[in-house]
Amino acid sequence: MDYREAGVDITAADAAKARIKALAKATFNPQVLTEIGSFGGMFRPDLSRYREPVLVASTDGVGTKIKVAIAAGVHDTVGYDLVAHCVNDILVQGALPLFFLDYVALGRMDPLKVEKIVAGFSRACAEFGCPLIGGETAEMPGTYAEDDYDLAGFIVGVVEREKALPRGVAEGDVLVGLPSLGLHTNGYSLARKILLDVLGLGVDQEVAELGATVGAALLAPHRGYLAALEPLLERDKIRALVHITGGGFGGNIPRVLPEGLGARVRKGSWDVPPLFRLIQKGGSVPDEEMYRTFNMGVGMIAVVSPGDLHDVEHSLERRGETSFVIGSVVAGPGVTLED
Amino acid sequence: MDYREAGVDITAADAAKARIKALAKATFNPQVLTEIGSFGGMFRPDLSRYREPVLVASTDGVGTKIKVAIAAGVHDTVGYDLVAHCVNDILVQGALPLFFLDYVALGRMDPLKVEKIVAGFSRACAEFGCPLIGGETAEMPGTYAEDDYDLAGFIVGVVEREKALPRGVAEGDVLVGLPSLGLHTNGYSLARKILLDVLGLGVDQEVAELGATVGAALLAPHRGYLAALEPLLERDKIRALVHITGGGFGGNIPRVLPEGLGARVRKGSWDVPPLFRLIQKGGSVPDEEMYRTFNMGVGMIAVVSPGDLHDVEHSLERRGETSFVIGSVVAGPGVTLED
Repeated sequence: MDYREAGVDITAADAAKARIKALAKATFNPQVLTEIGSFGGMFRPDLSRYREPVLVASTDGVGTKIKVAIAAGVHDTVGYDLVAHCVNDILVQGALPLFFLDYVALGRMDPLKVEKIVAGFSRACAEFGCPLIGGETAEMPGTYAEDDYDLAGFIVGVVEREKALPRGVAEGDVLVGLPSLGLHTNGYSLARKILLDVLGLGVDQEVAELGATVGAALLAPHRGYLAALEPLLERDKIRALVHITGGGFGGNIPRVLPEGLGARVRKGSWDVPPLFRLIQKGGSVPDEEMYRTFNMGVGMIAVVSPGDLHDVEHSLERRGETSFVIGSVVAGPGVTLED
Repeated sequence: MDYREAGVDITAADAAKARIKALAKATFNPQVLTEIGSFGGMFRPDLSRYREPVLVASTDGVGTKIKVAIAAGVHDTVGYDLVAHCVNDILVQGALPLFFLDYVALGRMDPLKVEKIVAGFSRACAEFGCPLIGGETAEMPGTYAEDDYDLAGFIVGVVEREKALPRGVAEGDVLVGLPSLGLHTNGYSLARKILLDVLGLGVDQEVAELGATVGAALLAPHRGYLAALEPLLERDKIRALVHITGGGFGGNIPRVLPEGLGARVRKGSWDVPPLFRLIQKGGSVPDEEMYRTFNMGVGMIAVVSPGDLHDVEHSLERRGETSFVIGSVVAGPGVTLED
């Protein structure tokens, strides 16, 4: 008996590694000192412009969005999503990305599938200036169904200590919402249940009100807000950033508010995209549940001083970024959703 | 319909988060600037003693050892294993750990199980001086069976650029093996197949030649070699380190050898522990396959100059560490296993 008979194909794994190497190398910058395939990725950070550099690290997955990717046979978008999610997760502390690593676990090693997933990592890592310096691909028959897989991403970034967010959030500050491109990576268990089970839609089915197939609408990429927000961070125009992920509005906005302050969000202040309305209608989901599960069309919220609002809106507009004032910071705790 | 009906229990997730927080906090040092629960972990590295600090990052899982943990109902050891594995993976480049993050994905959120897993992370992180500064716990019904889970770990360490390993490996260098405590985290698909399926053993079954139950033998911890090797790294007594993980001897030793050099390993130079012998006999596994799948009782190999051998052995002995000379670096490529 050998390892292959036990369900693990080391030769196929080596083929996948070669492809991963080339895709990772395309994301390297001069700070990367090593190629993928050493034990650990080596990175010599250029911290010369920081007085007191602080490393900010985060990890995340893409949840059951992967189930949609598998059903649709499209694997690069979830790779992209994972990097974008991680970039946003450290951006909310004011940090710019240094490097990224991935963990891919599959039921059966499929070099072509791994290549597609890593192509998504590579595309996003190049876009966000965040080299892919390492990763692990694990074949785990028995844990994952043959065609199933899971992804985890790890990011490290850096921020000047005194510029770390949130800082100085005050009553009266304005909540500026930036549009999402879909569900991003949250709420897929509920969304899949309603769209695929309750409504009985298929991923390849065209839905008029979505202007796309169900699969394409559900796989819309997780947006990374680095390019839109970096200039504003540089100029200290942002007091806090809220990445609307698991827990939605009520779960995430309080994380950046000082004790005793809350937020008021006006629900009519932006157009909720058709996908969310279809899910809500299809599952008779109460408003409250929708806003604590989904981003509802707002992927990131910037908290800005009222005096900076015009400047912030102008800067975003110049970069082709839509934004909407969706509410404000108020006295008293909690997040209130107003009609 | 709400999120709980779709199989995701946010309240149970919050309970798990609270326990994780306390366990993580126990690993903090003054370089950690934030508590778990912010978007990303903040770490202010003290790099004052480095002239040209290089960050070394690595990610890994524990493979299907998790299946044994589930069968035995023991979840802290795989948590410990993951950290030790990651610590070793950057140690081989000469790097000392700065911080660790974890990804835990489960079929059903079980706060007690998550607490046990994270208790293992916490114990190892404290032992290796490597704060647990962040993590993600994802409930993914549909990807994982109800009681199943997977783990990924992410570590960042630091090394002085000119001290990064491997460096200066030459013909005639000695391979010094350090004992493993079992399979560590590799070869579990094959080991489980042979022990549980072919031999029909149960995890709770006592096996005389193992002096333990099958479960206990298979769950023996992955050793971290930081404490044993750090003093030798400090004194530049080590030219390379080889962590014997997936790919075994033939897959890992060449990773630290300059082009044109190979290694000769004498098989009789250490006692292969009973667990490996039981697996080999039970599955009629050829020697070659055993040494490319398992660590065979050698978890780490230090490559040292012959002139430093006595010093190295003495230093290891003083720290209570057993070691065996298992071979040498030779001209010509490849790893030869000699009887």
